[in-house]
Amino acid sequence: MAFILPEYRTPDFTAEPFKSAPAARFEAAPKAGVAPGDYHATSIYPEYFQVAPGDWRLPRESRMDCVVVLQSDGSLTVKEFRHIAAGELVAIGRRENCEDGIFVHSGAFGQPDTLSDKFAFRTQVSRETAFSADYDELYGLLDHERNHGFILWVLGPAVSFDRDARNAFTLLVRNGYVDGLLAGNALAAHDIEGALFNTALGQDLYTKRHVPLGHYKHLDAINRIRELGSIEAAIRIGMVSGGIMDAVTRAGVPYVLAGSIRDDGPLPEVIANVYAAQDRMRDLARRATTVIAMATQLHSIATGNMIPAYRVMPDDSVRPVYFYTVDMSEFAANKLADRGSLTARSILTNAQDFVVNLERGLLGK
Amino acid sequence: MAFILPEYRTPDFTAEPFKSAPAARFEAAPKAGVAPGDYHATSIYPEYFQVAPGDWRLPRESRMDCVVVLQSDGSLTVKEFRHIAAGELVAIGRRENCEDGIFVHSGAFGQPDTLSDKFAFRTQVSRETAFSADYDELYGLLDHERNHGFILWVLGPAVSFDRDARNAFTLLVRNGYVDGLLAGNALAAHDIEGALFNTALGQDLYTKRHVPLGHYKHLDAINRIRELGSIEAAIRIGMVSGGIMDAVTRAGVPYVLAGSIRDDGPLPEVIANVYAAQDRMRDLARRATTVIAMATQLHSIATGNMIPAYRVMPDDSVRPVYFYTVDMSEFAANKLADRGSLTARSILTNAQDFVVNLERGLLGK
Amino acid sequence: MAFILPEYRTPDFTAEPFKSAPAARFEAAPKAGVAPGDYHATSIYPEYFQVAPGDWRLPRESRMDCVVVLQSDGSLTVKEFRHIAAGELVAIGRRENCEDGIFVHSGAFGQPDTLSDKFAFRTQVSRETAFSADYDELYGLLDHERNHGFILWVLGPAVSFDRDARNAFTLLVRNGYVDGLLAGNALAAHDIEGALFNTALGQDLYTKRHVPLGHYKHLDAINRIRELGSIEAAIRIGMVSGGIMDAVTRAGVPYVLAGSIRDDGPLPEVIANVYAAQDRMRDLARRATTVIAMATQLHSIATGNMIPAYRVMPDDSVRPVYFYTVDMSEFAANKLADRGSLTARSILTNAQDFVVNLERGLLGK
Amino acid sequence: MAFILPEYRTPDFTAEPFKSAPAARFEAAPKAGVAPGDYHATSIYPEYFQVAPGDWRLPRESRMDCVVVLQSDGSLTVKEFRHIAAGELVAIGRRENCEDGIFVHSGAFGQPDTLSDKFAFRTQVSRETAFSADYDELYGLLDHERNHGFILWVLGPAVSFDRDARNAFTLLVRNGYVDGLLAGNALAAHDIEGALFNTALGQDLYTKRHVPLGHYKHLDAINRIRELGSIEAAIRIGMVSGGIMDAVTRAGVPYVLAGSIRDDGPLPEVIANVYAAQDRMRDLARRATTVIAMATQLHSIATGNMIPAYRVMPDDSVRPVYFYTVDMSEFAANKLADRGSLTARSILTNAQDFVVNLERGLLGK
Repeated sequence: MAFILPEYRTPDFTAEPFKSAPAARFEAAPKAGVAPGDYHATSIYPEYFQVAPGDWRLPRESRMDCVVVLQSDGSLTVKEFRHIAAGELVAIGRRENCEDGIFVHSGAFGQPDTLSDKFAFRTQVSRETAFSADYDELYGLLDHERNHGFILWVLGPAVSFDRDARNAFTLLVRNGYVDGLLAGNALAAHDIEGALFNTALGQDLYTKRHVPLGHYKHLDAINRIRELGSIEAAIRIGMVSGGIMDAVTRAGVPYVLAGSIRDDGPLPEVIANVYAAQDRMRDLARRATTVIAMATQLHSIATGNMIPAYRVMPDDSVRPVYFYTVDMSEFAANKLADRGSLTARSILTNAQDFVVNLERGLLGK
Repeated sequence: MAFILPEYRTPDFTAEPFKSAPAARFEAAPKAGVAPGDYHATSIYPEYFQVAPGDWRLPRESRMDCVVVLQSDGSLTVKEFRHIAAGELVAIGRRENCEDGIFVHSGAFGQPDTLSDKFAFRTQVSRETAFSADYDELYGLLDHERNHGFILWVLGPAVSFDRDARNAFTLLVRNGYVDGLLAGNALAAHDIEGALFNTALGQDLYTKRHVPLGHYKHLDAINRIRELGSIEAAIRIGMVSGGIMDAVTRAGVPYVLAGSIRDDGPLPEVIANVYAAQDRMRDLARRATTVIAMATQLHSIATGNMIPAYRVMPDDSVRPVYFYTVDMSEFAANKLADRGSLTARSILTNAQDFVVNLERGLLGK
Repeated sequence: MAFILPEYRTPDFTAEPFKSAPAARFEAAPKAGVAPGDYHATSIYPEYFQVAPGDWRLPRESRMDCVVVLQSDGSLTVKEFRHIAAGELVAIGRRENCEDGIFVHSGAFGQPDTLSDKFAFRTQVSRETAFSADYDELYGLLDHERNHGFILWVLGPAVSFDRDARNAFTLLVRNGYVDGLLAGNALAAHDIEGALFNTALGQDLYTKRHVPLGHYKHLDAINRIRELGSIEAAIRIGMVSGGIMDAVTRAGVPYVLAGSIRDDGPLPEVIANVYAAQDRMRDLARRATTVIAMATQLHSIATGNMIPAYRVMPDDSVRPVYFYTVDMSEFAANKLADRGSLTARSILTNAQDFVVNLERGLLGK
Repeated sequence: MAFILPEYRTPDFTAEPFKSAPAARFEAAPKAGVAPGDYHATSIYPEYFQVAPGDWRLPRESRMDCVVVLQSDGSLTVKEFRHIAAGELVAIGRRENCEDGIFVHSGAFGQPDTLSDKFAFRTQVSRETAFSADYDELYGLLDHERNHGFILWVLGPAVSFDRDARNAFTLLVRNGYVDGLLAGNALAAHDIEGALFNTALGQDLYTKRHVPLGHYKHLDAINRIRELGSIEAAIRIGMVSGGIMDAVTRAGVPYVLAGSIRDDGPLPEVIANVYAAQDRMRDLARRATTVIAMATQLHSIATGNMIPAYRVMPDDSVRPVYFYTVDMSEFAANKLADRGSLTARSILTNAQDFVVNLERGLLGK
């Protein structure tokens, strides 16, 4: 199924309600990291701010639940509260339809054309939902994105626990379907445990047999990497070979390993400060055109928070950003997908099957 | 992976504890449908009863939670309580290691050779369990069973809700991987709805779009079949074409549709009396050498209850019966697989992905 | 919180669109158990049929997914397809707003007054939903229903597995909060196992210790009752004392035990024919004004299918019917509650805690 | 049910296998944060190290998956890998039964006295497990701990989403049942949102109604606290009054708010560096005698990792540490409770019901 990018509907700023809208207001931040009381918080949608009469500006790199800061050059930056500098000019006003000089463009990529469509897309998914079309759509999308987009993956450790899933992901990396990776210490630790011992948490990746002293395996993996100084060094000298971390490193795929309070070790590349980690994750999120988040609530929600529904491309065109979540439970899948966006999808299945399916659908043709 | 049937370990009845064991006792049933107070209840394992000195008999067709009736010809029949006739001779005694003349052969097909094996097999599964080996094992097993066994499927309606899953199952039927089918009114009704309207519960099988008056579709499907008199007639005249019921009917695969209190209709082939349905299901269960139960707790548990861990083949050889359950929730999968049997497996995933995987693994080679 | 019954809005049949609506059409059923092709299927809402000019009739005892039969005396009966007699006059037409002489009164008890209300009530529940108000509302409702309504319970076996839950339900029965009970063989079997052996599936109801030969306990319970001939006889002679079946029997609370293919035994009172069981369940459903369905998908869905959103009381007043489902999984709870009705509620929790909470909230005051 | 503390079984070091055991070996750490290759990793159990002939030492404050460092004064410290200093003497050897001079005392508080007990305790829990005894045991335990122990709570945000649960927890704090609190930014943010606006994520805590601009509420709550500089200041000046953070602050209960990549804001008291947060959490974990972890996988697993099965009290007596996890899903509950410890328990229910139950059971008497 060839993928066709939906067209962006640029608003007609010469018409109402734009024509008679006031200018957007900006107020100075009272102190560092604090917004003025009536700040405007961003959504996932494109939002326009009338900075001068008739001059409606769209921030280039947005994310939800942030503020919009007017720079001295007239451009707009979307900032987390913690990055607000004292005195910076923050957009004010919470009405979304031009009354405050702000327009939230929730229909930017068109609305479903019939009521039944709308219903279909908004209905929450369950294990009894049909997912064939979602897979087909995803194959088409990823083939498009490999050449024209940036495919960002978010992985929980489960994908490193199974031989076939681990191999399938490795093949996706080698074939250009992975442009960035967001994960935590556990994914990397168990993947390296797999590379060193062919186990995950002491269980054989294929037979599931518990090896002797298996509970030492992930600790040994982490300790060896810490002694060497970095995952990268272990790959360079061939100590770690095969698996996810090896594949992304060899392919030059950027990744962020964000720390959490659950971590053993941690591995040297893991970022201890979670807000620094957020910043690094957002660096990749800014470039993402499709996100696939699998088998992790923590990293999926964190990433979902920083992924807008659109991206302004280098040529100034505006395109949608697709967000897929894959999980086993209705609770998680629907929580993650509940973004009010037509480009958010959930697939309810085992992450292992999902990634093996993807590899077959994309490469087994 | 070529499948090798585990060898049956026939007990040495000339050795202890058999040698000095008493004869099995049998007592007359006090009335129809009622066992004597100290009845022996069957397990899933092969069980031997010493009916005469040195004559240890194994019932041919067993199932758990039943009684063992001594027939006038000296053979043993495993009967549900409701089938006990007044005065029938029912085996007595609850000790399993020959003290009551009864031997429960739980190690019939060998024990795992190491402790770690044992642990691996007994550990409950979760979404973080590695399933690659289970899939590979299953491919090998099913290729063996297609020629030498009887593959019994138990299906919840979910597999009829998705285009690819429905097609994959149809291909498995056509290629000889389905020897029997146990399901309910809903599976057949939604499958026929799919054949007539390309919907399931009013949603398009592929696009998920809700069609106009979609909530009438399954009722219309049932009403049309009821008017015609049978599913079989609808297939014969070509009214129903494509899908699961069509495939099994054309292939001559026997099926049982068991009624439940949830049913609309019902379809004519559905059996209203649940104990008559049990009897019909057990007719297929007696022949099963591998069972695959997907996405239904009701039918999976019902079938699991009547599937022993072994089957005596027509040539008197004894072989294991494999039992796979596929479900999305740990609760269901572990409940279903908790049979204390080395030949019971659970795979935690979406039934759609599972059946598509199977079709690819078996036929896409 | 005192409960106030919402008022029924009787349509004004002298106004449009009623005034210029055609008469409802009725067509003869082509054969027994089969509806004419364009039959009208009922919803959960009150529905009016214009049987003569200006004479709009509301069936007294409705349920969804059935047909409406015009009786010779001009009254309307809502019938399952299987109960249609050949030649009976069945209502025709699928438009719901008078164009076919049929009016589906989905706003019968008023609509929520604001959009946010609507959203609150329609949002699906999760484990992160606040349930305090639902409990308080339920306490008020049940105190009202004890005197003015009919409280129908639907129980899965879980409530019989725990000492406190079993005791709490018993107290609810004794204090008039249980007017009818729908369940299966398992609920009764494990409850009687509890009465005889203080176990459920061989585990102590309180300490959870597995008793010796515990797997015989539920079979022994069933066998003893079968020998005696009925649960009722066992209670009468004091063999079974304490627990759910004892409480409902002593209180004269009617119950239906519907058979299923999972059943051992079965117990003598269990109805083998599921459609006969449906009929008996519907006899109680016709009288229900509040339904509480706990920890069973099979019986909850079956009951939900036959519970309309309204009841015509003996004095011809029309009132809503409340439907609560209690389950541990979002999948089950949302599936069961997805009735499009403002009087359907789900509470996500363990059935044990729920029934203990109810007993405390209602009787511990 | 009065709670009785199990007695600690001090090993008889004059008997075998202690008598002929070698001395424990210690090797210098090759560099900071790195253990020698054959390091011994700690379990949750008491472990003895023979530092000199006949001198078996038990570390006072242990946790699993750490190393044991011999201090210059002969005492032993259990350290996370990241805290190892270069050259520190780390215990070596992985055999647990004295062969390496190390004894892992897994039976420290006695073993269950019968096989059935063992089975009962080791069986995984499900929604069909009886929990009455667990509640009763917990009431007895907490009454004991209020006077003699340290009760550490681990909370996910769900408990702040519901009026009754929030109030119940507040009462537990006021009555001395909360000695420490581990949580994240979300729990505090939504609790403060509740205090300021009576909402959680914009929904009324009781009616569930969505308030206008509800999605701003938690951002406004965070922004106001950030402006003021601390949660503590907001409570001191009375801006925040009522709720969980207010209760623990007023009661002087120490808490740790650990940062995560999901966080908005964050609130000023939240610790950005997850390993610094781990250290602060472990400070409370060292003192814990009972831990109750509810409705959070991230914080529950993190805490479980640092809670040993025993605590050495100031008077040198050794007692067990109890660990309860409360969750809605079998996956999470069993994962968290899978510690191989007799003092780990899981209760499967909604966190709201659990905390309300506890308040009633402890204070409603």
